[in-house]
Amino acid sequence: MTPSRDAFEARLRQIGADRYHDRHPFHTLLHGGGCTPDQVRAWVINRYYYQHSIPMKDAAFMSRVEDPGLRRRWRSRIEDHDGTDTNEGGIRRWLRLAEAVGLDPDYVASTRGVLPATKFAVDAYVRFVREKTLLEAVAASLTELFAPKIHKDRIAGLLQNYDFADDSSLSYFQNRLKEAPKDVAFGLGWVLDHADTQEKQDAAAAALVFKTDVLWSQLDALHAAYVEPARIPPGGWQPGEGLLNRQAA
Amino acid sequence: MTPSRDAFEARLRQIGADRYHDRHPFHTLLHGGGCTPDQVRAWVINRYYYQHSIPMKDAAFMSRVEDPGLRRRWRSRIEDHDGTDTNEGGIRRWLRLAEAVGLDPDYVASTRGVLPATKFAVDAYVRFVREKTLLEAVAASLTELFAPKIHKDRIAGLLQNYDFADDSSLSYFQNRLKEAPKDVAFGLGWVLDHADTQEKQDAAAAALVFKTDVLWSQLDALHAAYVEPARIPPGGWQPGEGLLNRQAA
Repeated sequence: MTPSRDAFEARLRQIGADRYHDRHPFHTLLHGGGCTPDQVRAWVINRYYYQHSIPMKDAAFMSRVEDPGLRRRWRSRIEDHDGTDTNEGGIRRWLRLAEAVGLDPDYVASTRGVLPATKFAVDAYVRFVREKTLLEAVAASLTELFAPKIHKDRIAGLLQNYDFADDSSLSYFQNRLKEAPKDVAFGLGWVLDHADTQEKQDAAAAALVFKTDVLWSQLDALHAAYVEPARIPPGGWQPGEGLLNRQAA
Repeated sequence: MTPSRDAFEARLRQIGADRYHDRHPFHTLLHGGGCTPDQVRAWVINRYYYQHSIPMKDAAFMSRVEDPGLRRRWRSRIEDHDGTDTNEGGIRRWLRLAEAVGLDPDYVASTRGVLPATKFAVDAYVRFVREKTLLEAVAASLTELFAPKIHKDRIAGLLQNYDFADDSSLSYFQNRLKEAPKDVAFGLGWVLDHADTQEKQDAAAAALVFKTDVLWSQLDALHAAYVEPARIPPGGWQPGEGLLNRQAA
């Protein structure tokens, strides 16, 4: 017998409790004020690659959806990141954060210096959404269920611990607190409706596990490269590169 | 003007000198006898995922080659790994190594416990070969130019430092010393012949850089997970799992 909708939702939430990247030691460092300016910069540079790939992931999803209603419902995700006439969008907000931590936004947008491991993980997510079932693609997006808490912790921790933090530099996170709940409420309902067999529930749970791996791996790579004993791999950002002129001076 | 064949070959060889994973600290540990049994096991488990993906990569390549001669020339790579009536093949040899270090070969072959970051990197390579030009796909294989030295160092280092090392457990590396040179001589000639513009040389060089990133990232993930201060990510192999019965007893 297929487990109930409630039991399945509890299973998905447990995956977040066990594996979401709020448990990663890099976030403890970052939110607690333990990061050096260069560690914050490395995080901003690498996390940009994720942000910049998300609308491509959402377009890949929409390219496979035949139902205009579902596409229309999904489209706001791309607008939230890429912007509209009245909303600068999450990617520009992220570049504002980059500037606030002393990085040249053009350097960050070039994605040079992004760790290869970050690219492999993020690209795996885009391809997952391009290749797997629609159910798995939507289920993978459900890490947003766990995002509001980490965004609140991050805003509070950054404001308390870092001079660069203010309403402008942290507007990305403030906006995600508004945007993510509507997306995830829809996504969760859709997954609960469509995972109507044990096999589909298992596939959806595995997709969510995969996505937690995508997030965790990015922080693992960042931690290994930039936290002592730091080992920056060939091609990774070297502190001092890509700074705003006023910083380099 | 397009740089000469010799200058282009020197450029490719320099990429190896700068970025090949023989320079990674995990290999220094491994070859110098500094790895614990569990660190060797973690390496065997994760590296298996690479070995098991290589014939899929080669099949992806052949699926895009229209010239029967080139496909015939390439086919021996799959035979070398998957085996023939008279050759057990590299994958079985790798599982013999797994057994020699106390791992259940069925556990290793299941690829459970492989680090997510290993999967992301290796899968990126398979997809690279599936999606990029044939020139880039062949150029990415040229890390084999740099492999004989690391295989010789590894055989010598493992024999000297670890009880499990003998002709049987190390036969994978002994065989690669015989197999790789014929492959790479062909691959290098093919790339030098076909990269006949600056743009193609640049693309081939970038493909080789990409491949060095694939190899380096695997060791970075292994080092971060299993060398102190070790941080095994969710889903990664935990020491004690997947042992042969005689070891667990």
